[in-house]
Amino acid sequence: MQVIEKQSGAAFKMKKGQLLKVVDPLGEQVSDMVVFNAEDVREKISSGKTLDYEESILITKGNYIWSNRSNKMLEILEDTNGRNDFLLAPCSPETFKIMYKNTGYHPSCFENLHTNLAKYGIEPDDIPTAFNIFMNVRFDSFGRITVKPPQSKAGDYIMFEAKMDLIVGLTACSAEDSNGGSFKPIHFEVLD
Amino acid sequence: MQVIEKQSGAAFKMKKGQLLKVVDPLGEQVSDMVVFNAEDVREKISSGKTLDYEESILITKGNYIWSNRSNKMLEILEDTNGRNDFLLAPCSPETFKIMYKNTGYHPSCFENLHTNLAKYGIEPDDIPTAFNIFMNVRFDSFGRITVKPPQSKAGDYIMFEAKMDLIVGLTACSAEDSNGGSFKPIHFEVLD
Repeated sequence: MQVIEKQSGAAFKMKKGQLLKVVDPLGEQVSDMVVFNAEDVREKISSGKTLDYEESILITKGNYIWSNRSNKMLEILEDTNGRNDFLLAPCSPETFKIMYKNTGYHPSCFENLHTNLAKYGIEPDDIPTAFNIFMNVRFDSFGRITVKPPQSKAGDYIMFEAKMDLIVGLTACSAEDSNGGSFKPIHFEVLD
Repeated sequence: MQVIEKQSGAAFKMKKGQLLKVVDPLGEQVSDMVVFNAEDVREKISSGKTLDYEESILITKGNYIWSNRSNKMLEILEDTNGRNDFLLAPCSPETFKIMYKNTGYHPSCFENLHTNLAKYGIEPDDIPTAFNIFMNVRFDSFGRITVKPPQSKAGDYIMFEAKMDLIVGLTACSAEDSNGGSFKPIHFEVLD
């Protein structure tokens, strides 16, 4: 298992057919994930295409994550928690200014994604809406959104299968409200 | 009023402070909209940032449409119908293959956006999830999505104010299920 320390991130490559296991080791910790085609990083995960093809806002076991070019990028093979979010963009420095009224520096998933992905030629403007693993975003019939603490317990995990060669960015999320008020690590491993 | 013929599109510039009125002249017709910063087209509308800052899936009068760089791009001043979608990506050639089992050519919002926006240096991979005006996407508490005919009646309109200099792409949507089974024009005008 590799460790993403609290409020940090990682980026790595995966081959088609490999599995990615993302674990919440202590519980109540979100991990934002973005994924790019390793051969052409202009192809990347698309919330809009995924929600359309999967006909669901809630993406879990049995669903695929699709690209902006309408290709399958990942299949979700297992999901012991079962609640993820694909509505909200990664928390960014502006998130903390606008929503948290924070005036100083604050770590963010956006920074932790683009700084780790820079080695693959991916720039800040290239970061799409992330697949937010374990994130517990509730919505009512009026469309109102509230972010609640994750329902994930220590050891909950999600397992993906890569449907093409991929570059993956992954974080241990830095937003207070998304993680039950405390920041914890995320563990992951790539399996053949 | 300018006319977007059925199953086609348009692209144009707006100055900060100008108004854009988009009208459904016959009723039950969707118009997909994408918007870019006229000074730097790498800044564009973001569903993920908008839903996060507006704390709602349903974006209507009083809401702003935000960019991937966390700037306000548009304010919605009026919305006589009141139901729009910001979950689903524009219909593309692949939409009709995958969801409609259509094997031949089919017009699409994606094609009508990128071909009209090409004159501004915008490429197909640059097209984000659109703000789908008049689109009636229903969702339940399990997250299941169904696309219903628009509730818009003849003459319903939405009015936006530009919060920066913008490039706008706009369509009369080409997807059968999104438009009550028939294709109609969209009217628009830019006002000082």
